[in-house]
Amino acid sequence: MKKLRVTLAQLNPTLGDFRGNLEKAREALEIAEQRESDLLLFPELFLSGYPPEDLMLKLSFLKENQATLEKLVSYSEGKQVAMVVGFIDCREDAHNSAAVIQNGKVLGIYHKISLPNYGVFDEHRYFKPGQEMLVLKMGEIKIGVTICEDIWNPVEPLASLTLGCGVHLVANISASPYYVGKPLLREKYLSMKAYDYHVAIAYCNMVGGQDELLFDGTSLVSNPNGKVVLKGGTFEEEITTIDIDLDENLRINLLDPRRRYMSTQNLPFKFLELPPPKPKKERYPEKPGSHMEREEEIFKALVTGVRDYVKKNGFKKVVVGLSGGMDSSLVATIATEALGSENVKGVLMPSPYTSRESLEDAYQLAQNLNIEALTISINKVFESYLKALEEVFRQTNPDITEENLQARIRGNYLMALSNKFGWLVLTTGNKSEMATGYATLYGDMAGGLAVIKDVYKTDVYRIGRWYNQKKGAPIIPQRVFEKAPSAELRPNQTDQEKLPPYEVLDEILRYYIEENLDPGEIADKGFAMETILQTIDMLRKNEYKRKQAPVGIKISTRAFGKDWRMPITNRFREP
Amino acid sequence: MKKLRVTLAQLNPTLGDFRGNLEKAREALEIAEQRESDLLLFPELFLSGYPPEDLMLKLSFLKENQATLEKLVSYSEGKQVAMVVGFIDCREDAHNSAAVIQNGKVLGIYHKISLPNYGVFDEHRYFKPGQEMLVLKMGEIKIGVTICEDIWNPVEPLASLTLGCGVHLVANISASPYYVGKPLLREKYLSMKAYDYHVAIAYCNMVGGQDELLFDGTSLVSNPNGKVVLKGGTFEEEITTIDIDLDENLRINLLDPRRRYMSTQNLPFKFLELPPPKPKKERYPEKPGSHMEREEEIFKALVTGVRDYVKKNGFKKVVVGLSGGMDSSLVATIATEALGSENVKGVLMPSPYTSRESLEDAYQLAQNLNIEALTISINKVFESYLKALEEVFRQTNPDITEENLQARIRGNYLMALSNKFGWLVLTTGNKSEMATGYATLYGDMAGGLAVIKDVYKTDVYRIGRWYNQKKGAPIIPQRVFEKAPSAELRPNQTDQEKLPPYEVLDEILRYYIEENLDPGEIADKGFAMETILQTIDMLRKNEYKRKQAPVGIKISTRAFGKDWRMPITNRFREP
Repeated sequence: MKKLRVTLAQLNPTLGDFRGNLEKAREALEIAEQRESDLLLFPELFLSGYPPEDLMLKLSFLKENQATLEKLVSYSEGKQVAMVVGFIDCREDAHNSAAVIQNGKVLGIYHKISLPNYGVFDEHRYFKPGQEMLVLKMGEIKIGVTICEDIWNPVEPLASLTLGCGVHLVANISASPYYVGKPLLREKYLSMKAYDYHVAIAYCNMVGGQDELLFDGTSLVSNPNGKVVLKGGTFEEEITTIDIDLDENLRINLLDPRRRYMSTQNLPFKFLELPPPKPKKERYPEKPGSHMEREEEIFKALVTGVRDYVKKNGFKKVVVGLSGGMDSSLVATIATEALGSENVKGVLMPSPYTSRESLEDAYQLAQNLNIEALTISINKVFESYLKALEEVFRQTNPDITEENLQARIRGNYLMALSNKFGWLVLTTGNKSEMATGYATLYGDMAGGLAVIKDVYKTDVYRIGRWYNQKKGAPIIPQRVFEKAPSAELRPNQTDQEKLPPYEVLDEILRYYIEENLDPGEIADKGFAMETILQTIDMLRKNEYKRKQAPVGIKISTRAFGKDWRMPITNRFREP
Repeated sequence: MKKLRVTLAQLNPTLGDFRGNLEKAREALEIAEQRESDLLLFPELFLSGYPPEDLMLKLSFLKENQATLEKLVSYSEGKQVAMVVGFIDCREDAHNSAAVIQNGKVLGIYHKISLPNYGVFDEHRYFKPGQEMLVLKMGEIKIGVTICEDIWNPVEPLASLTLGCGVHLVANISASPYYVGKPLLREKYLSMKAYDYHVAIAYCNMVGGQDELLFDGTSLVSNPNGKVVLKGGTFEEEITTIDIDLDENLRINLLDPRRRYMSTQNLPFKFLELPPPKPKKERYPEKPGSHMEREEEIFKALVTGVRDYVKKNGFKKVVVGLSGGMDSSLVATIATEALGSENVKGVLMPSPYTSRESLEDAYQLAQNLNIEALTISINKVFESYLKALEEVFRQTNPDITEENLQARIRGNYLMALSNKFGWLVLTTGNKSEMATGYATLYGDMAGGLAVIKDVYKTDVYRIGRWYNQKKGAPIIPQRVFEKAPSAELRPNQTDQEKLPPYEVLDEILRYYIEENLDPGEIADKGFAMETILQTIDMLRKNEYKRKQAPVGIKISTRAFGKDWRMPITNRFREP
């Protein structure tokens, strides 16, 4: 009977907070030991936080990471559980590493072999790839240690570990950036890997936000049948334990002779001998978990993103400009869920073009969310600008200039409140606006965190509707969903004067940005070439704005952030 | 007698402007052919421009690059010169490549072996490394083809090409990002390589600006003695030709037996047979060029950066807020040199805290530069803001909020002028300010291009002094150099109230940012630990501002741009 008790420490570290992260690790260690776990997994680079970016180039940072590992090792004295913890091994060169620690000793260190350098990843900038696999032997049980990307490759190192070395369990410590649907994809992918290679997989993922990136947790254990027997919560810190039955693995291997005929690469192995697992009395049973619907997942993601950005950066309160429109209503709602009513301030900044309905809706929302609402008119300040610029603007006609001025006065108000009271400004622009430049730089784009920067307008509506339904009440007033979207910067303005309908726009953008299709391919999906080229043209022309936008929470496969590295100076035009 | 006539096309492509770049290539081809050149070198990725960043992920972009190469090939029909041109070979995977073209045919394609992925480089994100070296044989003459980074490695592929294969000339096509002193460093480095490996080197570098990056040209040819026999202008487009005498090479090899005993890696070679060079009548003699002094080099760099950013992005005129201080004076001067007096607008935006001297100096500068100067007071608008915020700010005291408001009104004025008249706003913040956050987000940081973002305050003064001296007149008024630097946002304010003296600050910053020293190591240089930690603390706290700053022209080894990838959320504190 090969049984192994595994604890997954699905925790939320803070980048650079070595002391705080160490304390979290120590607590998890105590719990895992109490639960008589044989193996305790932490996320990738848990001690430092992930991704450390150019802090990797600071010797002092690397040294403190090393010192933190040593403290954790000394905490482990007298503890029987073997833990696998992510840190930066920088003794000779920098490696994204997993230390195997037990009873006051580092038994071995594994270096991540597959370093991603695409999308949001820059791991070739910082790390040297590992050249050797690491296998723990606990009596008869063999456990392969891997880090994140290692398990996402088509063949290696998984093939060598399983088909080559015959490990019973692949442990994977991870910091896997979230996008919508990633938890489900990961579950499918890892359970199919377990099924394909006839091996149990224990996957421990990071949770929490780090600037634009989110980590959703949703750690899991799959048995060698591909059945998920444990699933951690999504966007929840959690320390979960399970007893994995590893006999299953052998049975399947004996019945399926494929592995005897399959060749693997010649990667070297290193083996570590550990004491075998001790017999236990009570059981930690299966907890397969359930799925979340799309809107709930996104909402929870954004709430986590706001909470972590605000708190990890030492803020307490936030301020949101309330226009009575859909975007600001959703942002205020998310902020309230993340931080509590007392920590969210709404500001209404009416102009002559603000409709009565918008003002009413903004007040109603503030009331529904139970947040304080300030009102500061922009009329007088706007007039004083027009007066000051009168001479210079003689013989010109009103245009986008005057519209932008209004947006910028509002931006200045919010920043003044931020400066005076220490409130972080949340911006309310959505992905459709960020893409097309339908936003004012230094105006509605001014702030510290762009909450829905990666959420298309059509999804903003969907999430708003889902929220009201969940609450069983029109927290976001019904009229907000019904009126035509407008910036209200001149009389009777609507978004759709300048933009294609959002249902069309969002699809074209998604094909172009996230699926990287060429215009012809998008046209094949049933969109007019003229609309496609107009959309792409707006996208390209507004690169300079996006370069100056605040960070936003990434929820798609390609957000305007680390995975959108477009030049400003760019004469390329889609043919 | 082994002689080879080489033409270097040190040209300034525009990213994505395939048609324009092709036209430049065609012109260079005509000239090289007229000059009976045997070999014509273009810069790295010349046909697309460099760096293409995430345009690399667009199939349509890659296809147009391929189509452009084909057009160039057809232009080459009937031409005897062999040309080496940088493009993206994307037939099977994406490679940073050099095509060897002669008389209507692609004779061979080389794939860059050494792909940089540090500093400003992300080449592992986009390209697959080459696995094979390419050697051209023109009769008895062997020429190794390399791309940029290939020649900056300590050993390979240079060792194999020279010691292994015995090439007479290494041709290197390059897009080498500029920093102060790079032209001289490159000259030393390449000539020492030539000396060490007993091989002639012909190095053709890109020239011009692409967003934050500059390429300085300064192409060169070194003979196998390490003597630079040709040097291209710095920040100049140029097509230069030289006859290289390659007998020298053989003589040295016979006299120095080292190579017979040195081992090299086993990289495969591919040989291309080309017709031998024909005998020529007249000579293209040596042109070793001269050095530039530091201030002149920086000034020329910034002028190039402004000119290329403005023109390549389709702007004509720029606007600069003139405060009468050193920074804005230098920026206006650079802009005037880059674009001409008629294309630069100065705006004076006095407040009650603006000194009479500052206003006079600003006017005087505008007069000296012969640029139009507008004056728009911020007083009334500032008052209207205070009035509007009066209620909300009851029971608070004036602080940084009111200072920022003034800066933001000025930012709004400049942006309003930009919106109304299509003038690009140049910001005037220097590197010392960008580092310490001594600047207002959406205020003086508002604009399209941050001209001196990578120039420390002490250098701003140096360059200003150099400029006046060069002109033999106080174009930048003498008083600007003499008065204490101040933001003039409250009475009697000076920079040095909040910041260490610039002589100290700049050195600490340079050690920390550019040399990556730890605080203890900086203290060893003779600075007070308290000042060091205070400086580093300011640097860290202002990451969020820098994330929203406009692009700036990189002139140092580490600018706040592509090579400064710091997290905002960061609890790491220097110990």
